[in-house]
This record gives sequence, structure tokens and C-alpha cells, in this order.
Amino acid sequence: MKDFAFTGGRPDPFTFPTEELIKASEKALRKLGGDLVNYPGESGYKGLRELASMRFERREGVPLPVDNTSITSGSMQALELVLGTFIKPGDTVLTEEFTYSGTLGIMRHLQANIVGVPMDYVDGMDMDALEEKLKELKRQNVTPSMIYTTSNHQNPTGAILSLERRQRMLELAEEYDTIIVEDDCYGDIDFVPNPTPDSLFKLDTSNRVIFIATFSKILGAGVRQGYFVANQPHYGMIHHNRWDGGTSALASAIVAEFFIEHLDKHLEITNAAVGAKCQAVVDTLDEHVSGLCTWTRPRGGLFLWIDLPETTDMSKLNTLASEKGVGFSSGSAFHYAGAPVKAIRLAYAYCHVDDIPEGITYLAEAIQASQSEVVGEAAAD
Amino acid sequence: MKDFAFTGGRPDPFTFPTEELIKASEKALRKLGGDLVNYPGESGYKGLRELASMRFERREGVPLPVDNTSITSGSMQALELVLGTFIKPGDTVLTEEFTYSGTLGIMRHLQANIVGVPMDYVDGMDMDALEEKLKELKRQNVTPSMIYTTSNHQNPTGAILSLERRQRMLELAEEYDTIIVEDDCYGDIDFVPNPTPDSLFKLDTSNRVIFIATFSKILGAGVRQGYFVANQPHYGMIHHNRWDGGTSALASAIVAEFFIEHLDKHLEITNAAVGAKCQAVVDTLDEHVSGLCTWTRPRGGLFLWIDLPETTDMSKLNTLASEKGVGFSSGSAFHYAGAPVKAIRLAYAYCHVDDIPEGITYLAEAIQASQSEVVGEAAAD
Repeated sequence: MKDFAFTGGRPDPFTFPTEELIKASEKALRKLGGDLVNYPGESGYKGLRELASMRFERREGVPLPVDNTSITSGSMQALELVLGTFIKPGDTVLTEEFTYSGTLGIMRHLQANIVGVPMDYVDGMDMDALEEKLKELKRQNVTPSMIYTTSNHQNPTGAILSLERRQRMLELAEEYDTIIVEDDCYGDIDFVPNPTPDSLFKLDTSNRVIFIATFSKILGAGVRQGYFVANQPHYGMIHHNRWDGGTSALASAIVAEFFIEHLDKHLEITNAAVGAKCQAVVDTLDEHVSGLCTWTRPRGGLFLWIDLPETTDMSKLNTLASEKGVGFSSGSAFHYAGAPVKAIRLAYAYCHVDDIPEGITYLAEAIQASQSEVVGEAAAD
Repeated sequence: MKDFAFTGGRPDPFTFPTEELIKASEKALRKLGGDLVNYPGESGYKGLRELASMRFERREGVPLPVDNTSITSGSMQALELVLGTFIKPGDTVLTEEFTYSGTLGIMRHLQANIVGVPMDYVDGMDMDALEEKLKELKRQNVTPSMIYTTSNHQNPTGAILSLERRQRMLELAEEYDTIIVEDDCYGDIDFVPNPTPDSLFKLDTSNRVIFIATFSKILGAGVRQGYFVANQPHYGMIHHNRWDGGTSALASAIVAEFFIEHLDKHLEITNAAVGAKCQAVVDTLDEHVSGLCTWTRPRGGLFLWIDLPETTDMSKLNTLASEKGVGFSSGSAFHYAGAPVKAIRLAYAYCHVDDIPEGITYLAEAIQASQSEVVGEAAAD
């Protein structure tokens, strides 16, 4: 049986640049050689921090502060460090109603009180709703530890926080005295030119934004090369919490050598491949379940979100899809409170593009076959 | 001015196997290719875990449990994870009176009550003293969280915990219901054949030992490839605390490909180089300060410990040595309570072997020039 894996935030394996990375490894090792006996330092290999800065400048027109950039094991370790620094047990944090399950896992592990803010799937978090939540917390004398947001190609919905909302979020963070953790893991996975506004980190004028990004999502989760950027005093506070001796300079140097030469070209190739996969998913859904479900039409990133009818038997859907080898992620994993929502997330970059119509057709059939027969009754409830 | 750097636990840069690592990178990348888009899993790249097991079997005659081995960013992240799991604020931990400063840093960060156990520089921690401390704690109704020990080529003294002491430590851990964290970072850096007894992890029959080791100390701190090994329930408890998405599979696969082919040969070459450096340090000290100081004569590892006369002005010693470009680590950094001891640690693997006589001669002169003139008076105090 074929495996139609729409699970996990993995890039396209078919455009993985094996040969170019072999050349980059040779360059990196010849450049560093015996210097690799030294510790990379807690902030990590400088060449990759400089590359992160150039990457940011390419999108945003300004560089990153290299000395306040710290390389981490993927963006997950950045999240672990940043959230672990600013969240104490019982603290309140705000995030989109639907957000990355890994972030929710860390927040729960840290015993945070997670407040979900309503959102739409196009422009992201609703700022009126955010203000309302902040007001309500203030009435209870609660200052939240942070607002966590995935500003670009949000996981799981693909939403892009609009410029106006970004500006308003910064104002609200200032007014209610909290920080913003901007998770920009998917920022370079664009299917159309320049779909995203300036980053919160760039727009910030009152030192309230910590920026997180990664090379893993445009290359491979297995390389584990993420980073966070924070001005002082935040940077020092986060590093006070870091005891791992820094991220592998060997892996960092290879990734740096590769992207110094190939960033634009690689993005062109891999984004075209991932964009075509996204389109294939959308086309197949259009063909089979357009009367039954609604779904997002991402302009980038790795994820598409399907809202299913309330009449969907989620357990039956899982069983039927799995019988055909179709894997997806349950929507409830991304709900801030783990509510049993009738929705699923598809990660479309991993499956072969030629297999997508078949896989998504099976999924559509499974969705159709998972509708309870008492539709009218349920709707009347 | 030359730089005589006897600081930091770094391997020999001159035997760093650049060319072999280039070949290993090519092999690793061709083997993995697009699979690198996948997460390595929290336990890390299986090929390196298997190599860790073979490495253990080579020394100890038995393999490691591969599924209970977890790759980390150097041994530091292993320490961070293991200590972070078992030490709650206010908990008591026992360790050698002199031990690795990085471990002490993590313990202090975790707000542990650190109890230093007297030791000697040949056979390590004194077991009668350990029993006395454990008895005393029991009288106070305190069950310590762990005994932390560097069993082989101890940092900072070079001591090797004797087999008899290992057996007794295991009995005491059982009797007083605590665990042992065995840090075996330096186990393969042997200057004489088979200088070290069986590991505590191998000798353990009651699941009380967590084992930590690394490839960084026999290759390069910059590769950041360490690991811990723990049986259940410890393994699960530690991983419940791990949120980084696993260590770079790219770096792990390169290190695995290299050592699969070259472990014995590389150890032969690099241990001969490091052993010669250690001997050069000892010879130069013998020549210049044999009447004034005493020092250890390591049979392996990266460190040598010098006990200085009580009349040494440590601040003057630092200044004079630094004026000649000689760097070393202050002994107090390794004291469990940070006491201002008259001792220093030399890390001998980094400096070029031809520079060692000159550097250590400067150090000897600095030691001589740092003796207070009121020797008799100080001794009479």
C-alpha cells in the first residue's frame, strides 16, 4: 500500500540538494578544520548567524543584529529556551485559537494558562478580540507573559497576519506591557512574490519582540538549524537559561556554506515544487468535496486547514483514511485548549506530487463516508 | 606574542581528521539525502546511537541499549537534561570536592544544595567520606537526588575511580536510595592500554546509573555530539523534559560515518598526540617547580591539576602568566563551593606540543614569582 503522508512539518524531499550539500560540507570542513575542536560558543557559529542576517535583509531590507542572534537545534529549541525563560508556572500567555501543537506542548509543560484568541484564516489573529482578552486579564490584575504568534503562513491555517494587525498588536503589547514572540518558521516558503508584510521584529520600536526562525523548514528538519533574535535584556535572560554549550558548528557551517551560494536558487526550486503540491491538494479537494467542506488556500508555508462538517465522525475518518494509507493531523492538536474540533491539517510538502491526487481523493472519500446519517437532526440541535 | 592556551576541554586540533570527515560527509549525505527532511526523533540519529553502543562494547565487552540511548548537543545538553530532570530547587546532590565547572554551573542554576565529597587524585571519590555524608544526610531526613561522578580521567584532576570504589558506590546508592550520574566524557582518551575499570553503568544491577558520554572530546567540541543512556523509567522521565526536536541528524550521520571506519585508528593517532603533550607538561613542571608544587600525572583525559603552595598570590599568578600569554583555569572554578583554593587546572591537548616547554616554563616562572615573601609567617598562622 502506498503511503500518503500529510503529517509533520517537513519540506519537500525531492528537491533536497544532496550534491550541493556535499560540496558545501567539503568547503566548510576545509575552512574550519581543526578549529572544530573549539566550542561554537553559546550563540553558535558566526557564519550562520551572518547568513541569518543576510536572509532577513533580503526580505525586510534591514539586517539582523548578529551578536543578538543565537543558533539553536531547530526552532523547537529556540521555543524551548524563549518560552522557558518568560513563562513561569501559572503565567498567562495569549496565542491564536489554532496554533502549532509543539508550542502548545511546551506551554502546557511549563504549566501556562493558555488564552486562545479568535482568528480568521486569511489575516490571522483578530486584534479586537486580542484587545478584549487583554482588557479582561487586566481587570483580573493579570499581566500576560507574552503574545505568541506565527506571523507568516501560520501553522496550521496558512494565515498571514496583515500589516495593520501587526501594527495594532505592537501597540497592544506596549499598552498592556507584554512581549511578542514572533515565530517566523515559514517566512521564506512563498508561492507568490512578496506575500507577507514586514515582520513584527522589524516594525517594533519599543523592544517587545523576540524573533524565531529556522533553516530547517526550507532545507530539512533533520539539519536542526534554527535561531532566535532578541535585543537586550531579553537576549541575556534567555542565555542565562541555556546550558547546552551551543549548537553543532559542523552542521551550522555546512548549512551556511550551502545557503551563502544557493539561497535564492534553492528557494526558487523548492518553493515551486511545494507550491505545485499545495495546488494539487486544493484542486483535488475542489473536485471532490467542495459542497461539503471548506479549506484554506495558502500563499505559502507547509500547511492547509480543512474545516469539516459538524456531522463528521472523526474517529471513522481516521480509520477510513488510515486504511488507504492517508495520514493527516487532527485539528484538535492545534486548538489552544485541545477542543475536539471538526477540522484537520494537511502538510503537503512531503508526499510526491504525482501521488497527491490519489491520496487526496481517498481522503475526500473518507470524509464523505464519515458523515453521520442524522445530518438533519444534528443540524436542528 | 604566542598564545599558550591551557584552558577549556578541547581535543588536539592538529590530529583533527579534516580529509576523512569530508569523505564521511559525502557518504552520510548520499546515504541520507532527502531523508534529512525528516525529524531525527527525540533520541536522535540511530546510526550514531548504534556507534555509541559499539564503542561501549569495544571497552566494556557489552553493548549499550540503543533504544535507551539519546543523542544530545555534546555532553552538556545531556547534563542539562539529566540534572534538570532529577534536581528540584533545594535538592541535595553529592559530587567530588573538585569537579567539572560546567556541571557545578547547572547544579547551581537548578538551586541544588551541593555536597562535596573528599577525594584523592589517583582513585577518585573517597567512599568512607561518601558514606559519612550519606549517613549525615539521612539523620537530617534528606535523600539526595544523585551522586554525580566523572569516573574516568576526572575533570579536573585526572583521577580514575577504582573498581573497588565503583562497587562500593553502587552499594551505597542502593542503601541510601539514590541514583548515580556517571559522566564518562573522557573514557577513550587513554595514554596507556586499559587504564580504566568497568563502568558503573555496566556494574550496576539495580538500575541506579545514568551514563553520559560524548564524541566531542575525541573529535571536536564544535561537533556537539554527546549522548546519555538510561534505562526506564529514567529514560522516559528525562525525555518528558526534552523539547528540542532532537539533535542534528546531519552532524550525527557525519560523525557516525567517520567513526564506523576510523575509531581505533583515530584514537591511536590522537591519544598518542595528546599523551605526548601531557608528558611535555609533566616534564617541564618536573624540571622547574618540583620543589614548590605537586601535580597529577594523568593516564588519560585532557586535564592536569597543580596544587600550589599556600603562599601563592593567585591574582599575581594570573597577571604574570597572562603577560606571557599563558592561559589556565583557576582551581576555585572546580571546587564544589567555589572556595579560593590554591590550585590550577591545565588543559594540555590544545597547545602545539612544541610550544608546551616554553609555555609551561613561563607558567613555572610565574608560579615562583607569585610566592608571598612572608612564607614563614603564613605557615605559622
